[in-house]
Amino acid sequence: MSYKAPIRDIQFVMDEVLDFPGHYQSIPQGENATPEMVSAIIQEAAKFAENVLSPLNKIGDEQGCQLVDGQVITPDGFKEAYYQYVNNGWIGLPMDESIGGQGLPTSLGRITFETQVTANHAWTMYPDLASGAIKTIQAHGDKSLQSYLPNMVTGKWSGTMCLTESHCGSDLGLLRTKAIPNQDGSYSITGSKIFISSGDTDIAENIIHIVLARLPDAPQGIKGISLFLVPKIKVSDDGSLGNKNGVSCGAIETKLGIHGNATCTMNFEGAQGYLIGEINKGMSCMFTFINESRLAVAQQAHGHIEASFQKALAYAQDRMQMRAPKRKFPEQAADPIIVHADVRRMLLTQKAFTEGARLLNYYCAQQVDIAHGESHSAEKLKAQSLLAFLTPIAKGFISEVSQEATGLGIQILGGHGFIRESGLEQEYRDTRITTIYEGTTGIQGLDLLGRKILASKGEVMLPFVDQVTAFCNENKDHSFSKQTLMALNTLLELTDVVASKANDPDEINGVGVDYLMFAGYTVFAYFLAKAALISEEKINANAEDKNFYQAKIATANFYFSKILPRTKTLQATIISGSAPLMAMNDGDFSF
Amino acid sequence: MSYKAPIRDIQFVMDEVLDFPGHYQSIPQGENATPEMVSAIIQEAAKFAENVLSPLNKIGDEQGCQLVDGQVITPDGFKEAYYQYVNNGWIGLPMDESIGGQGLPTSLGRITFETQVTANHAWTMYPDLASGAIKTIQAHGDKSLQSYLPNMVTGKWSGTMCLTESHCGSDLGLLRTKAIPNQDGSYSITGSKIFISSGDTDIAENIIHIVLARLPDAPQGIKGISLFLVPKIKVSDDGSLGNKNGVSCGAIETKLGIHGNATCTMNFEGAQGYLIGEINKGMSCMFTFINESRLAVAQQAHGHIEASFQKALAYAQDRMQMRAPKRKFPEQAADPIIVHADVRRMLLTQKAFTEGARLLNYYCAQQVDIAHGESHSAEKLKAQSLLAFLTPIAKGFISEVSQEATGLGIQILGGHGFIRESGLEQEYRDTRITTIYEGTTGIQGLDLLGRKILASKGEVMLPFVDQVTAFCNENKDHSFSKQTLMALNTLLELTDVVASKANDPDEINGVGVDYLMFAGYTVFAYFLAKAALISEEKINANAEDKNFYQAKIATANFYFSKILPRTKTLQATIISGSAPLMAMNDGDFSF
Repeated sequence: MSYKAPIRDIQFVMDEVLDFPGHYQSIPQGENATPEMVSAIIQEAAKFAENVLSPLNKIGDEQGCQLVDGQVITPDGFKEAYYQYVNNGWIGLPMDESIGGQGLPTSLGRITFETQVTANHAWTMYPDLASGAIKTIQAHGDKSLQSYLPNMVTGKWSGTMCLTESHCGSDLGLLRTKAIPNQDGSYSITGSKIFISSGDTDIAENIIHIVLARLPDAPQGIKGISLFLVPKIKVSDDGSLGNKNGVSCGAIETKLGIHGNATCTMNFEGAQGYLIGEINKGMSCMFTFINESRLAVAQQAHGHIEASFQKALAYAQDRMQMRAPKRKFPEQAADPIIVHADVRRMLLTQKAFTEGARLLNYYCAQQVDIAHGESHSAEKLKAQSLLAFLTPIAKGFISEVSQEATGLGIQILGGHGFIRESGLEQEYRDTRITTIYEGTTGIQGLDLLGRKILASKGEVMLPFVDQVTAFCNENKDHSFSKQTLMALNTLLELTDVVASKANDPDEINGVGVDYLMFAGYTVFAYFLAKAALISEEKINANAEDKNFYQAKIATANFYFSKILPRTKTLQATIISGSAPLMAMNDGDFSF
Repeated sequence: MSYKAPIRDIQFVMDEVLDFPGHYQSIPQGENATPEMVSAIIQEAAKFAENVLSPLNKIGDEQGCQLVDGQVITPDGFKEAYYQYVNNGWIGLPMDESIGGQGLPTSLGRITFETQVTANHAWTMYPDLASGAIKTIQAHGDKSLQSYLPNMVTGKWSGTMCLTESHCGSDLGLLRTKAIPNQDGSYSITGSKIFISSGDTDIAENIIHIVLARLPDAPQGIKGISLFLVPKIKVSDDGSLGNKNGVSCGAIETKLGIHGNATCTMNFEGAQGYLIGEINKGMSCMFTFINESRLAVAQQAHGHIEASFQKALAYAQDRMQMRAPKRKFPEQAADPIIVHADVRRMLLTQKAFTEGARLLNYYCAQQVDIAHGESHSAEKLKAQSLLAFLTPIAKGFISEVSQEATGLGIQILGGHGFIRESGLEQEYRDTRITTIYEGTTGIQGLDLLGRKILASKGEVMLPFVDQVTAFCNENKDHSFSKQTLMALNTLLELTDVVASKANDPDEINGVGVDYLMFAGYTVFAYFLAKAALISEEKINANAEDKNFYQAKIATANFYFSKILPRTKTLQATIISGSAPLMAMNDGDFSF
């Protein structure tokens, strides 16, 4: 079954829940984002995802990438799809007009990204990494580096982010790649990077690598890391391509999923590079990008939930097996498996997760518009707080439930789900990376609980907490908002419990993931409750959409009955703290 | 990292927790199973698993099986390992001496199977399917069919179980393969079977297929299915091989995992077959085998937990990344990641699951000895009740937690876990089938709650409930037994809650999986508590093993603090029942 963009739900979230039309009127980039324009762009994005990217998803998985004479060859059709994508201006859609973009809101880029990433995660990583490189250069590069941007925005040149080395992933402070100053102000970069997504490709004339490296006299650890721009092919002052730089792809990893994307070992051997930003401030420059890329991972993870749900649902409606207790198709030998309560449990879990993820992701995208925008300062600060709090939750929580949801996708199909042909197992494999890259769930938990909440003495939570509390108070007799408020209050109590023990740093690391998951279930409760309450208001006024709104209410009811109770377990495990984890001697794990 | 059989823990479970020496003295097959013999057999099994099977695990995954001129070719080394296995008499170890076996206890076969299946799941499916076929023929075949057995027990001939068809898996009542009586008393079998594990191989001279099919005048559904023996190559009366029968492998499935095993489409075109048991009683004959094979799946799932734990632990002890809050290796730039609380949370989850699974699986194996044995009737009936209750739990629960545990194995390694080379992702893929075949978790939930517990008005639970209650009462001041008893009592209350609503069959299907999981967490609590209490007694008497016993207590403490609280969520979801699942209209799932 091929992907079908859920246009009705995208509209619902944008127009009926999160008031994107109003939002776009309030930001400068929204000027051209009229409802008609937005709708047309989403329709076009959906068509491209459905007709071009979706059919390439299995091809990419089966062919993978090849390294031929030091050059990565992408799967059949990837290059053509990329040209179509860049020629239609998709990369530049949310980029500034000054660098050749269309100046539309970032959020609109993220919403169209949903359709693309659901159709073909591996493929989207080529343009998406380029976008990350563009934003990093734009934010931190000096004037001469800005000259790289126009060719990147048109897609003529792609880009990568080179962070990880074989001995350091989560702990970048250990990295060893060296940057030796040259006389002309450039640097000579030497070292080996691993796990570089889209590290080399045959889809662009040149590749602009963004590389973390260390100057000879740099301090140890994270404070001695600088950021460099290293082109695959050197660029002359007039913008023309010159000689090959000292950068090469040493190998492509053989991996569990996202086969269509080349995950490369990249070797830098005295490659000419240019400093981005200040010396030894590389990590803080990187963080501009890392936060946005974490939101992109949340969307990848969501894409796999959605795709798995669509495929599993089609199967469940079609596959005749066993009898419904209340036999629905007496004229046939069996009923479609969607009638069985346990199959519905699995489908509803997927449905609640895909709809919750869409709400949270679009909400975050909206806040990115504001946080990066020129609106007055209080709103901007509020948006930054919301993002600081919600980014690790979106990344960590959605990627974790994506594992579960895609696992259920296989389970709904039974043996057929285990077979390559169904496509369900590809969703399961492809999404497995989302809890890992751009910071594992453990790192997200530390970020949320340690760097964000405890470091700000809880202040970073307030804008979101206030918003949820206000919603719950406005609807204080409704069962969904009562339960949401109860979860929120428990989260706040648990925050105090952890804070009271935070002088022991093991405590934060020991409960970080459970705390993040608790927060995630609470955030989803809020958004699904909000969607359901809006649906309750509209259901009688709108005969045509009655079933759509009914389904929203039923999904929220399922979520509050079957999913939110997971907070009960997490409450207990957060309270039990880190002691049960630390009691075992390091050497006693195995015998 | 290659597999190392956990001999110390195997001994602990057998000798110190479950009193296998005493058990073997009480059953006839135990006569030769002296402690020395048992120990020697386990050591030999461990060597074979470590030295022969483990190195073939990745080869099997990477090469997979090929279909060449209608003949399945197994991966390099599989055939040689099979010869070594059968020549050393491993297939016959738990088989009756009357058919050429060694007459040792079934449980000893299952315990040696643990080492094999942990080292190489896909490979073990060749001998294991043969064993299933042997047992089915032995239990239900008439005298002439018994003559097939000696060649199967020596491994000269292998065997398969052919159940599933493309339109029916869980619902075998729909199957269409036809059996037309021939004049000579044999049958002519025609139809197509899918998902046939070890369906064709190049490792045996002949393959004895056990096939479900339907006579022309058979009643519809499950009551019209008969069981047949269908050899790949016809066997003459003198036992020599004759002409090829009308059986062929049409295709090998491309699938998520267990690549080393050929999952075949098997076409029967007027193949000569022989009735096993009575006409139309095929399903009840099959169930002899299905119950044992469900316990084998529980062991496969356990094997993946153990293998993933071993690999993840080795990595966590070796990989230097980030600083421990209480810096352990100040002379190095980072600490091994095992010091981090979140990494320990993941490792301890794996450790608790592998140790709990070993306890439950060995306990079940012990009950199989008694249930199939000639002991006096009350004990036998009790063992049958214990197995009726524990089999769906072992199969369903261990396979579900195996998904989680192998996912954590990847997560502990981060990006390196996503890469093929580490082997962690193979464990994750290979175990994915265990929640599906031999009855999905949904089917296990229905079996446990519907066919077993409610159908017997709870009586089937009593032997296990009494045993756990007695243990908890004997240790009533201990925190672990208090918590175990509380979980058990809640399980009983929930059983009453479900029973009170069981006039609605959606209810059983709607909460079956949650109920099964609740039961699983409770059963593991009992076994881990028991192991911990024994360890507390021994810890001071035994300086050499002090750390071993300490680890048992720490693991149980972890389990009770961090894992057993999952029952709180399940309690809520079981109580909320099926209504939230059934409220959605079938047609409203998608828009």
